[in-house]
Amino acid sequence: MRTPFFRRALGLAAVLLTTAPLAATAQTTTTDSLAIRKIYDEALAHGQSYENLRYLTGQIGGRLSGSPQAEQAVQWGRVTMEKMGLDRVYLQEVMVPHWERGAKEKAQVKGSKGKGLTLNVCALGGSVGTNGKLKAQVIEVQSLQELAALPADKVKGKFVFFNRPMNPLHVETGRAYGEAGDQRRSGAAEAAKRGAVGALVRSLSLAHDDFPHTGMMRYDENGTKVPAAALSTNGADELSQLLKADSDLTVELEMSCRQLPETKSYNVIGEIKGSKYPAEIISIGGHLDSWDLGQGAHDDGTGCTQSMEVLRLLKATGLRPERTVRAVLFMNEENGVRGGNKYAEQAKVLGEKHLAAMESDGGGFTPRGFNIEADPATVRKIQTWQPLLRPYGSAEFQPGHSGTDIEPLKSQVKALIGFDCDSQRYFDIHHTAADTFDKVNRRELELGGASMAALVYLISKYGL
Amino acid sequence: MRTPFFRRALGLAAVLLTTAPLAATAQTTTTDSLAIRKIYDEALAHGQSYENLRYLTGQIGGRLSGSPQAEQAVQWGRVTMEKMGLDRVYLQEVMVPHWERGAKEKAQVKGSKGKGLTLNVCALGGSVGTNGKLKAQVIEVQSLQELAALPADKVKGKFVFFNRPMNPLHVETGRAYGEAGDQRRSGAAEAAKRGAVGALVRSLSLAHDDFPHTGMMRYDENGTKVPAAALSTNGADELSQLLKADSDLTVELEMSCRQLPETKSYNVIGEIKGSKYPAEIISIGGHLDSWDLGQGAHDDGTGCTQSMEVLRLLKATGLRPERTVRAVLFMNEENGVRGGNKYAEQAKVLGEKHLAAMESDGGGFTPRGFNIEADPATVRKIQTWQPLLRPYGSAEFQPGHSGTDIEPLKSQVKALIGFDCDSQRYFDIHHTAADTFDKVNRRELELGGASMAALVYLISKYGL
Repeated sequence: MRTPFFRRALGLAAVLLTTAPLAATAQTTTTDSLAIRKIYDEALAHGQSYENLRYLTGQIGGRLSGSPQAEQAVQWGRVTMEKMGLDRVYLQEVMVPHWERGAKEKAQVKGSKGKGLTLNVCALGGSVGTNGKLKAQVIEVQSLQELAALPADKVKGKFVFFNRPMNPLHVETGRAYGEAGDQRRSGAAEAAKRGAVGALVRSLSLAHDDFPHTGMMRYDENGTKVPAAALSTNGADELSQLLKADSDLTVELEMSCRQLPETKSYNVIGEIKGSKYPAEIISIGGHLDSWDLGQGAHDDGTGCTQSMEVLRLLKATGLRPERTVRAVLFMNEENGVRGGNKYAEQAKVLGEKHLAAMESDGGGFTPRGFNIEADPATVRKIQTWQPLLRPYGSAEFQPGHSGTDIEPLKSQVKALIGFDCDSQRYFDIHHTAADTFDKVNRRELELGGASMAALVYLISKYGL
Repeated sequence: MRTPFFRRALGLAAVLLTTAPLAATAQTTTTDSLAIRKIYDEALAHGQSYENLRYLTGQIGGRLSGSPQAEQAVQWGRVTMEKMGLDRVYLQEVMVPHWERGAKEKAQVKGSKGKGLTLNVCALGGSVGTNGKLKAQVIEVQSLQELAALPADKVKGKFVFFNRPMNPLHVETGRAYGEAGDQRRSGAAEAAKRGAVGALVRSLSLAHDDFPHTGMMRYDENGTKVPAAALSTNGADELSQLLKADSDLTVELEMSCRQLPETKSYNVIGEIKGSKYPAEIISIGGHLDSWDLGQGAHDDGTGCTQSMEVLRLLKATGLRPERTVRAVLFMNEENGVRGGNKYAEQAKVLGEKHLAAMESDGGGFTPRGFNIEADPATVRKIQTWQPLLRPYGSAEFQPGHSGTDIEPLKSQVKALIGFDCDSQRYFDIHHTAADTFDKVNRRELELGGASMAALVYLISKYGL
């Protein structure tokens, strides 16, 4: 059993009880408290994010740029926003890379004494295929630095196995992801420079399981292109153990992934015109593309449905924004950021005035607050609104990274804002076959859309 | 993809950057920051809560008071703490109620025109059985008040169907649980007073699914005892729909649950003696018993393993507490609170000096902070430590309910403290067959134990 809380956690009462600086409470008004309460009530009683996500993940599924599913997702986004009766819904054309995993993806460990083991692997996004079977010995390293320090003959003709785990000591899992990411992004390119035939990379995950995690990797412009595969964390631990006992073992890798010609695709944009300052634009978005292994539920179907939900919440509550609010479903965040770049480029071409841009791309988990990229004065102004979000547990406003799709807008906006939610479970499923609808909790998802709508409402009312 | 955060979220730096009142930062010291960092590092790198919970839920499972599993859990708790090399591990005898669900538990809707439907039901804890099949018409109400207002002939000989949902508008789900709980606790007793033959109660859940949620109900001392069953939320919605079309339909209920003689059981207690003030005691606990339907994972295996982990973390980090710290695995929280009452009673008998008591009984989800029951000055003193927990996202310290097992200690302690974690998913699985180990995330669980240990460390150092 669990008995009820008696936290004075709702309404203005709570706002006045908070431990926030006085500067903040001075800013808060009953009108704003009530408006935000209306937004949360609508989201918790009638939120649509969850059912929209059920369709996107279940009926369309994984949707890598250039795939038929990505195109279905574009049409789904357009039609869904058109049904919402917005002031404007349109597509923004953008050319995207088209990489395909192909049917073959497997790896076998062959011990020098005949012992064998199948590894759970997947190609990293952008990798070349193996062109049949590629068999070689393996050299394990913990970092790009360790690789650089090795004599060439230790690496030549082998697979370089990058096995540095994510650092479990960071409470914020995104930090650990960032620190371990260089192996995945540049491992193959650096390995090729030293004469290696391929790269095997430990999956970027804090979980111990059998899911390989894909993700983007890059080759040097004129460097040799060697195949790059991710191993599940369990698989990486097993391979490392086997190597200790048998350094002569070989791995046989077969992957049929390939790069195809670029394809035409679209950002999907819906907007509500501002009632007072229609020329001032606040953008909120997530990315519509996803990796191909799972359903792209937390990455980033949740960010897309929450962004659309912000517009629906403003309409349903009758809180017409004084400034224009746009939901942008960006294409190609995962392997090119072409959609984000195109959106910023067009904003410049059209001479649009962008006030702020917000992105949700950390999953649809319980909201914690927002990470803000802006000048100190603007950060402080946004922080004066913390008390209004505190009753909803979404009041952690701090300087921090916003989002990959909105960063290209940096020079054109007052503030870039990243929606910040609980990060503990995200990297367990990130870029895997396990990123599916059943991992999303309805209330956690709808609370996220509500907190985004609340901050968008305040910016649209007070400006920046 | 998700790019790394650059939140200055760790270490003293963050403490100094927080928006907390100055009073607080004045209190914080580098030594305390470093000690707390050590606790979190140990928990995140080597935490044992998760593997302990795997055993308790997987090898023992559901463990209702009086059951063989409850006794196995007592022995498991004793042995596990003995292996930790504590200063003292002992059992505290307590007599507990022994209720058994029995093999039969089913309900059939029979339409007056022959239409039928099977309902997902379970007996509420403490209910009498149906003694064969019990068939009657159904009258739906939303509240005890609505029932009281009905003319007797509308109720006599029928099942009273309490169908008020939990209020989805509360962000803190515990509030919604508290508000809807009267139907489950007193529904049958009130229905019997009006001549009803039984009570059917909508499950206390914010999810829409087929799991019936059990939980404690009570009869009046000298009142008639009629059977009480919970319907899944989907089942309750279906029955309500059917009643609109066919008010003469009947429900046939069969339940073989029964009350057995009281049984001897135990609270399991382990302690580390305080280095300076051994006579001053800080208790931390969860409840060892659980309902029988699932594995008692989030309710409350997590609270038990976290409480044991607090002792392990203090030992492993070498942060010997200046005051005595006790982990208490309380028996019988679910249907009697005999263990909690016995612990408080013995504390008085033995003339023990209890400084503070903390309980974790809201699941093993990501920590948010603590709910404190104490005089305003003590609450303020505890709140001066908020900045030390802020880097770990566990800094919401507010007045609020602590825990059912520690409340009997209220008159004997300076502060009762409830560990507060994310509440969104808890009631989806609470008291159901779905409260299983796979619903627990390793990092979320270990972070909880670390935040509990951090606050216990501060209380043991500074007192209250």
